[in-house]
Amino acid sequence: MGSLPLVKILLLCHLTFGSTFGDTSDNEVYACSLPEDLLTEIESYAPLVDKIINETIYGSFKGSTWQELSMFVDTFGPRFTGTQNLENAIDYMLNRSVNEGLQNVHGEYAVVPHWVRGAESATLLQPRVQKISMLGLGYSLGTVSQGITASAIVVKSFDELQQRQREIPGKIVVYNQEYVSYPKTVKYRSRGASEAAKYGAVAVLIRSITPFSIYSPHTGMMSYEPNVTKIPAACITVEDATLLNRIADRGEELVINIKMEAQNLPSVKSRNTIAEIIGEERPEKVVVVSGHLDSWDVGQGAMDDGGGAFIAWNALRMLNSLNLRPRRTLRTILWTGEELGIIGAQQYIKEHQAEKGNLQFVMESDMGTFTPIGLAFTGSREVGCILEKVMSLMGAINATRLTTPHEGPDIEGWVDMGVPGASLWNANSKYFWYHHSNGDTMAVEDPHALDLGTALFAAVSYIMGDLSIDLPHHA
Amino acid sequence: MGSLPLVKILLLCHLTFGSTFGDTSDNEVYACSLPEDLLTEIESYAPLVDKIINETIYGSFKGSTWQELSMFVDTFGPRFTGTQNLENAIDYMLNRSVNEGLQNVHGEYAVVPHWVRGAESATLLQPRVQKISMLGLGYSLGTVSQGITASAIVVKSFDELQQRQREIPGKIVVYNQEYVSYPKTVKYRSRGASEAAKYGAVAVLIRSITPFSIYSPHTGMMSYEPNVTKIPAACITVEDATLLNRIADRGEELVINIKMEAQNLPSVKSRNTIAEIIGEERPEKVVVVSGHLDSWDVGQGAMDDGGGAFIAWNALRMLNSLNLRPRRTLRTILWTGEELGIIGAQQYIKEHQAEKGNLQFVMESDMGTFTPIGLAFTGSREVGCILEKVMSLMGAINATRLTTPHEGPDIEGWVDMGVPGASLWNANSKYFWYHHSNGDTMAVEDPHALDLGTALFAAVSYIMGDLSIDLPHHA
Repeated sequence: MGSLPLVKILLLCHLTFGSTFGDTSDNEVYACSLPEDLLTEIESYAPLVDKIINETIYGSFKGSTWQELSMFVDTFGPRFTGTQNLENAIDYMLNRSVNEGLQNVHGEYAVVPHWVRGAESATLLQPRVQKISMLGLGYSLGTVSQGITASAIVVKSFDELQQRQREIPGKIVVYNQEYVSYPKTVKYRSRGASEAAKYGAVAVLIRSITPFSIYSPHTGMMSYEPNVTKIPAACITVEDATLLNRIADRGEELVINIKMEAQNLPSVKSRNTIAEIIGEERPEKVVVVSGHLDSWDVGQGAMDDGGGAFIAWNALRMLNSLNLRPRRTLRTILWTGEELGIIGAQQYIKEHQAEKGNLQFVMESDMGTFTPIGLAFTGSREVGCILEKVMSLMGAINATRLTTPHEGPDIEGWVDMGVPGASLWNANSKYFWYHHSNGDTMAVEDPHALDLGTALFAAVSYIMGDLSIDLPHHA
Repeated sequence: MGSLPLVKILLLCHLTFGSTFGDTSDNEVYACSLPEDLLTEIESYAPLVDKIINETIYGSFKGSTWQELSMFVDTFGPRFTGTQNLENAIDYMLNRSVNEGLQNVHGEYAVVPHWVRGAESATLLQPRVQKISMLGLGYSLGTVSQGITASAIVVKSFDELQQRQREIPGKIVVYNQEYVSYPKTVKYRSRGASEAAKYGAVAVLIRSITPFSIYSPHTGMMSYEPNVTKIPAACITVEDATLLNRIADRGEELVINIKMEAQNLPSVKSRNTIAEIIGEERPEKVVVVSGHLDSWDVGQGAMDDGGGAFIAWNALRMLNSLNLRPRRTLRTILWTGEELGIIGAQQYIKEHQAEKGNLQFVMESDMGTFTPIGLAFTGSREVGCILEKVMSLMGAINATRLTTPHEGPDIEGWVDMGVPGASLWNANSKYFWYHHSNGDTMAVEDPHALDLGTALFAAVSYIMGDLSIDLPHHA
């Protein structure tokens, strides 16, 4: 997932729903009072849910999400926005979808940015020569070819940056901020360059936004404030950020060289990948099940967001193979350009705004596909109560819990416009160990956890698509 | 620590002592029956142990092992055998020892190998182009300048290698062995090149010997069997070994290019670093407290074995600052050349063999300096019983336990010759996450855990050096 959206989600969306019905893990009885016939209707899906779970966990689909995902990420590797490799990966998924008999398979164009990393390096020159492992940040400018060589100053916070502003001109600023949480700490990556440039810094090196490191740099998106000088920005490892901080604290002068060939090239066309099971009775009404197909240009993008995209896609593939067709249409969307600013999802909203009233429910997985706990939801109280009841059918995979709000950058636009939505809630405490680093590979993904995620997405999307009532949108 | 010694220790040393008195964690009462006056004598050290612990954990030495270690590893970085940097680091420790008032401070020469890594790379060329992160292995030959380009075959074991021997000629062999434990799995790194060369392989890439990875390659020593063609050998990440295995399992051809500038240069002189507190009554009798000062050429060598060397050295510095001088001499030895074959320790034994009878007890820390649990010991039953009693005084730092055998490559030669010895037993379950990788930095080291290790080494070495009786050697 990209980072800015998450911050926004966490800051804003808590207001949307609060904990009115809340997290059922507390074992409280929430004051839901759905009509008896609706409760009975939802309960009647229990045999179908069992069938879906059995097929996914024990049947012919056992292990298939992992198999499909590993074939995909091993074949294409990372799928960075703007690359031909991403387009080839999209073609592959379109073909796979057609071959599997999914319907209305097509790509929908979106114009996406084309930032390229190029060769890059950072080297400590004083007090001793040592290579500094680094990853340039998305949208960063590059340096001149001989690089930027300058004294460096290490700060632990924006406050310290401000306090020491008179030391900044002409310097490289190294941020060694503590990791509090991703949403709270990612501002150093997003805004660190402009904040330092305001005081005359010539480049920034930012401690990677992660709670744990084995000398692993993590990349991600940054942005420049308007009317502030644009300076190159890269992330370094936790280990090197703390090393540089210790050396500076001893009063020794740090001199660093940074070379980056990063460039922002002209935008190119990419595509959101779409495939459906067309609804039996109300085909114009839609449940969206989604993840993003693009990834950062390091690692394999297996976790972010290969796993999410594949539980969504494989959920539809599995329902289709069982000839399970709900009343409404199930639409899997594999978004493009998420990592460089949710580009594909924004384009999709722009083009499909008129269909808002037809959107029954939107789902996404972009916070890892570790063992599922349940769903994270944003929407009205009534839909929350319905979803809570639906989740009570997921006992066989121990994923009955509901929390709020949802965490999904690509469905956020729809949810902000009132469409009820949910994201996979999973045991992702180590997600940021690997996020946006070379460690994001198939080694992180577990076949059984992926099966559970696929089963959950298949069962929930089917029921939401098949319910006798249209779900109300929230204000 | 180097790896081959550990294997040997684990395979051989269990025979030395067995669990006759064993691990006191079992809360069994072992059948020790030391003379009453010896028990009383050991108990009489309790106030002194408390003084040492207080000074190290709460007093003026609080945090000092971490401070000294970080200053050292931040200043010198990795200290690879054969480099001028290691010699500079040795000079620094000799000067620090003199300045701290330690006695008989000197270096003792040892001729050490001079293997250099040079530039190195591995690249997957087919079925798609991707960089493979790697680290060449110590003593490996390099390649010709354009590198070796060949088809690759992936095997999971030496058995599979043998079964598929007809496929091997002209190929690069990739070992994707499972990690069982370091002692059981390290044979692939040590012997993998020669085993593959016997069947005509042209190079080997070996999955790093680690239970956990965030795309981190780990280096280490390898050796060539006599009369077998020498081929280049490097370790790759767990992630890439499993990736290559999956691709091969799908029947796709792997083509890899390996470039290594590695060279074995003529041997050079290095030094073991020695400093003492000369014994008050029997200066010719000696307790050795040791760790190795050299490290691999990646990371900072903070864990392997900066921490071990510094709890040994700082233990003596602290005792000296308190004017605590036992009957016998306490000698800290900071070994050189451990990582390339325990070179410094072997040279030391050769030159000091005649003093064997004067060695009261040898101690080492080379398996991490995480929170101490107690000591791991090899020696006679009588010395085990004495040590068990001594350890009972360490309750204030919760490090009273004793296990067997010791794990210390640099003291192993003496222990094999009958000198009782012990190594630090610490909560090192993550040791091999970082071992011989860029992740071996100060970020692994905890100030309080280092203080505890220093206190333990200081207290035990003082008592063993001050006891009224000479400890018997084992057969």
